[in-house]
Amino acid sequence: MSPKITAELLKQLRQVMKNPKYVQEPVQAYIVPSGDAHQSEYIAPCDCRRAFISGFDGSAGTAIVTEQHAAMWTDGRYFLQAAHQMDNNWTLMKMGLKDTPTQEDWLVSVLPEGSKVGVDPFIIPADQWKRMSKALRSAGHDLVPVKENLIDTIWKDCPQRPCKPLITLDLSYTGVSWRDKIVALRSKMAERKVTWFVVTALDEVAWLFNLRGSDVEYNPVFFAYAVIGMNTIRLFIDGDRMMDPPVREHLQLDSTLEPEFKIQVMPYGSILSELQAVGAGLSPKEKVWLSDKASYALTEAIPKAYRYLTPYTPICIAKAVKNAAETEGMRRAHIKDAVALCELFNWLEKEVPKGTVTEIIAADKAEEFRSQQKEFVELSFATISSTGPNGAIIHYKPVPETNRTLSVNEIYLLDSGAQYKDGTTDVTRTMHFGTPSAYEKECFTYVLKGHIAVSAAIFPNGTKGHLLDSFARSALWDCGLDYLHGTGHGVGSFLNVHEGPCGISYKTFADEPLEAGMIVSDEPGYYEDGSFGIRIENVVLVIPAETKYNFKNRGSLTFEPLTLVPIQTKMIDVNLLTEKECNWVNEYHQKCREVVGAELERQGRHEALRWLLRETEPLARVQ
Amino acid sequence: MSPKITAELLKQLRQVMKNPKYVQEPVQAYIVPSGDAHQSEYIAPCDCRRAFISGFDGSAGTAIVTEQHAAMWTDGRYFLQAAHQMDNNWTLMKMGLKDTPTQEDWLVSVLPEGSKVGVDPFIIPADQWKRMSKALRSAGHDLVPVKENLIDTIWKDCPQRPCKPLITLDLSYTGVSWRDKIVALRSKMAERKVTWFVVTALDEVAWLFNLRGSDVEYNPVFFAYAVIGMNTIRLFIDGDRMMDPPVREHLQLDSTLEPEFKIQVMPYGSILSELQAVGAGLSPKEKVWLSDKASYALTEAIPKAYRYLTPYTPICIAKAVKNAAETEGMRRAHIKDAVALCELFNWLEKEVPKGTVTEIIAADKAEEFRSQQKEFVELSFATISSTGPNGAIIHYKPVPETNRTLSVNEIYLLDSGAQYKDGTTDVTRTMHFGTPSAYEKECFTYVLKGHIAVSAAIFPNGTKGHLLDSFARSALWDCGLDYLHGTGHGVGSFLNVHEGPCGISYKTFADEPLEAGMIVSDEPGYYEDGSFGIRIENVVLVIPAETKYNFKNRGSLTFEPLTLVPIQTKMIDVNLLTEKECNWVNEYHQKCREVVGAELERQGRHEALRWLLRETEPLARVQ
Repeated sequence: MSPKITAELLKQLRQVMKNPKYVQEPVQAYIVPSGDAHQSEYIAPCDCRRAFISGFDGSAGTAIVTEQHAAMWTDGRYFLQAAHQMDNNWTLMKMGLKDTPTQEDWLVSVLPEGSKVGVDPFIIPADQWKRMSKALRSAGHDLVPVKENLIDTIWKDCPQRPCKPLITLDLSYTGVSWRDKIVALRSKMAERKVTWFVVTALDEVAWLFNLRGSDVEYNPVFFAYAVIGMNTIRLFIDGDRMMDPPVREHLQLDSTLEPEFKIQVMPYGSILSELQAVGAGLSPKEKVWLSDKASYALTEAIPKAYRYLTPYTPICIAKAVKNAAETEGMRRAHIKDAVALCELFNWLEKEVPKGTVTEIIAADKAEEFRSQQKEFVELSFATISSTGPNGAIIHYKPVPETNRTLSVNEIYLLDSGAQYKDGTTDVTRTMHFGTPSAYEKECFTYVLKGHIAVSAAIFPNGTKGHLLDSFARSALWDCGLDYLHGTGHGVGSFLNVHEGPCGISYKTFADEPLEAGMIVSDEPGYYEDGSFGIRIENVVLVIPAETKYNFKNRGSLTFEPLTLVPIQTKMIDVNLLTEKECNWVNEYHQKCREVVGAELERQGRHEALRWLLRETEPLARVQ
Repeated sequence: MSPKITAELLKQLRQVMKNPKYVQEPVQAYIVPSGDAHQSEYIAPCDCRRAFISGFDGSAGTAIVTEQHAAMWTDGRYFLQAAHQMDNNWTLMKMGLKDTPTQEDWLVSVLPEGSKVGVDPFIIPADQWKRMSKALRSAGHDLVPVKENLIDTIWKDCPQRPCKPLITLDLSYTGVSWRDKIVALRSKMAERKVTWFVVTALDEVAWLFNLRGSDVEYNPVFFAYAVIGMNTIRLFIDGDRMMDPPVREHLQLDSTLEPEFKIQVMPYGSILSELQAVGAGLSPKEKVWLSDKASYALTEAIPKAYRYLTPYTPICIAKAVKNAAETEGMRRAHIKDAVALCELFNWLEKEVPKGTVTEIIAADKAEEFRSQQKEFVELSFATISSTGPNGAIIHYKPVPETNRTLSVNEIYLLDSGAQYKDGTTDVTRTMHFGTPSAYEKECFTYVLKGHIAVSAAIFPNGTKGHLLDSFARSALWDCGLDYLHGTGHGVGSFLNVHEGPCGISYKTFADEPLEAGMIVSDEPGYYEDGSFGIRIENVVLVIPAETKYNFKNRGSLTFEPLTLVPIQTKMIDVNLLTEKECNWVNEYHQKCREVVGAELERQGRHEALRWLLRETEPLARVQ
């Protein structure tokens, strides 16, 4: 992977930063955030402006270009990748390390007095604008909105915004109709005394209307906004996809409906002017509810006194708690996904020793097996198929320049998942197809202990996920090892593989308490730069727990693994496990046998079934 | 303990809330925060305004009185106590429970439109003012400063502000002279480009000048402010204590000094006008550093553009990391404290069966034994001496109305500590002088497991204490038990027994990372309302840890117990301990024997020594 040459692009950007055609006054710095106008984590090619200007295409990162400098902030998952992809014009700012300045502090340290810092007001979330603007103002600078995106002005062959057909989901998948979701949303609005709700996140629009799309790779969403009033529903969406008969029927566009359920379809690009019109027509008692992560542009459309901003919207919170139909769908999706992975690992076990399987071939094969499963739609993220030193690049994606051949001498890490019409999967397994070293087994076993500590944790109702993060690290910490990423993220139901408002991380303190029905990942790891990477990830469902004393009837929660893929016992140093941990592994493998075994049998996949049975033999502790 | 009758007082307060003599316009609500003008946790009698108006005298709580309502917010430590101490005029708002409204939300729900909410601007911290003011304004109300404290206007026999003599501490106690502390502070100021620093917290003034006082019970501080410029030092302090020759010499008030170390002594009451004068004379490049918890009144004295506010001041952070002289002092203090407690427990063991020892007698006896130790100054907080159901009142203090007799049938919980000139102690032991039930032992053992999990935890440099909180709860959670308080707080060095910026709590996310030299408490508990309370508390020192792989040279930390008092083995169900936990107890007791045993021997306290030896017999696991 050679870095992108950016000298010429930076020169052009610095020119438009002074060009009166685009900026009212020259800007001395220009911020290029990661997201799109919906603050999406995964973005369409036309929105990959930060990758275009810098070369770094990881999922998180903010670029800032000044007249003299170009700097990139990203987190521990991407330190190696960013260093590989960016040329010497760029300085890497490693977030989370003690000496790394914040973007604000850095700007203040490099800018000449009284500078203007520009940013696209549609791309920057309102909460970030506020923080950044305040910090800059207190140092004598100004954050200014630049209406035309400056990257777009220098991006000659910028791709078009996608506008793909929609998928409708019926009640058997969603459990709740879009009308009932609107009713529930309006009741939350009434509770908070707000009269308007603006849906800006793409997965929230998709969830609310029980629609899916494919405008963004991996995330089954479509470009749209919605504005919900107490008696009106406006959906801002482009293209002829609203002409599709199943979509018209699903949304009842041609039916005679009570007016409060009549959906007005409007052009995607009209959201700002329509919202400004809403803002201008508000009566004193009205309030407009927006996420505090909505774009600065949309937030500003509503006069300050009428805004009701919250970190998590009621849709975000409702979407996180899966109902019975969604949970059952997730279970089915994970069984199918396990079938595909049993096939893959059985195949790899035979093929790797021949020396013909590369990371890309393995990833493609994983996709091939998954695509054989019913209701497969697409992958849920770019497959991380990495062997040896590539495994230490936490969010590695194999490309021809880095593509390594799997061998019996190196650890192989596969972090992959798919979108099925009934659910979303995300699973990591770390395998050795030869004989792992004692040190590799030791590290793997600490990671496994951490995985089990979270998965088997019992905690009172009302506990936030971040309080569980240290459980995943304790065994590693005891030996002086750690990993530079969070332990888990929320997972959508045939939706984004990363979703809020819950998670398990030392960083996330704004997370909402875990509730029965929420679904998160449990994925501790260990990474030895230049040598190997280890991660063990299951998607787990929050379920009620039974305890001896039940927290004085406050009740308690624990996790049930939805992922049912064997954890390679060859990698485990059994003597480092407690009896309880050993039992956990054996019971987990017993469940894999029963549930996935039955499905392999049903699908007539006998060789993979034999592999599963072999890989799930019970562990026995020597001591 | 019968509740305070407050109907008449509330009537008077509601009158002055409308009296133009005190308020420009009538206020519809009046907030009575817990603290004093220095945001102290422990306050002088003249500052106990919230206790005066409500009867509730716990260390944390905020009262709000409206025309119709009177409500008190406090946390889990004080739910029972507040319910006991307040009459029916008051509504208890249990903070931390899901359905409890915030003060802001509650005010918005009860106030008539366009209300004024009053508060003493010297008592409310600037950050709370900001949050409260914003929330009220967005609901159409106004937070207004009421210059004259309205409680003081109705408090007929309000005591005078104390003004006691000062104690000077030489280098053998502090390790660093006040001049060197000023130099270090000015270098931190230069780093942040600020020209003035305002010291508002009483313990910060005391620490900076290596002085102690006794204006506030338990906390060896004195009423004062300081304003440090790059070339000036102003100390705002009342009374003739500045005439005391040792103090004059300590501060070099009569010496010819470089002007930048010359201390100008000014009246305590002149801080506001002096600070306003500083504020008025600032040149554009100047900044004034204040804690964001400084009072609204003092913060407002500096024009907004010149303020530099941080949650923790550089003094707070420097004070938390104890140097060698302070650490050695803390060790000595804890050994003396252990001697006193060995004497006490030996005495209790003999006396309790006679049925003559009450909670108050036991607390007095503890103080008596402590006062026999060298350099004893006073207690470090009100002794929690509680038996049976009183033990479940987390911050219980025995009074004649509640005073219970210790017996061989009930658990006894003693949470106590002292100020010695060389250090501050805080220790909790839970004892049974008869035969504990299996359930009592089970609960005690879970609490012990949590205590050990924190004390023996190894974690990488840079870890914040709140990440360790769940370790203390895990064993309890597994059985459906929990406790409603944090696990640990910072401890001062012959200073406040509670100090920032570090701690171990599920609530504290703004804590600073733990560093070697910091001192915190480790005090998980379990409380069965109406039956018993269990808590096991040691003060522990953060020290470097040795690990197998040392976090790639990032280094790691663990804790060393400074408290060396036996943990009653009779209360332990050994079969619930792991081998590692059992070894921890045995090694801890071995250290108690060696270190405290030697001191008991030296002091000729042979009976207590025999008690110590008996109580520290090694545990043996049956399995």
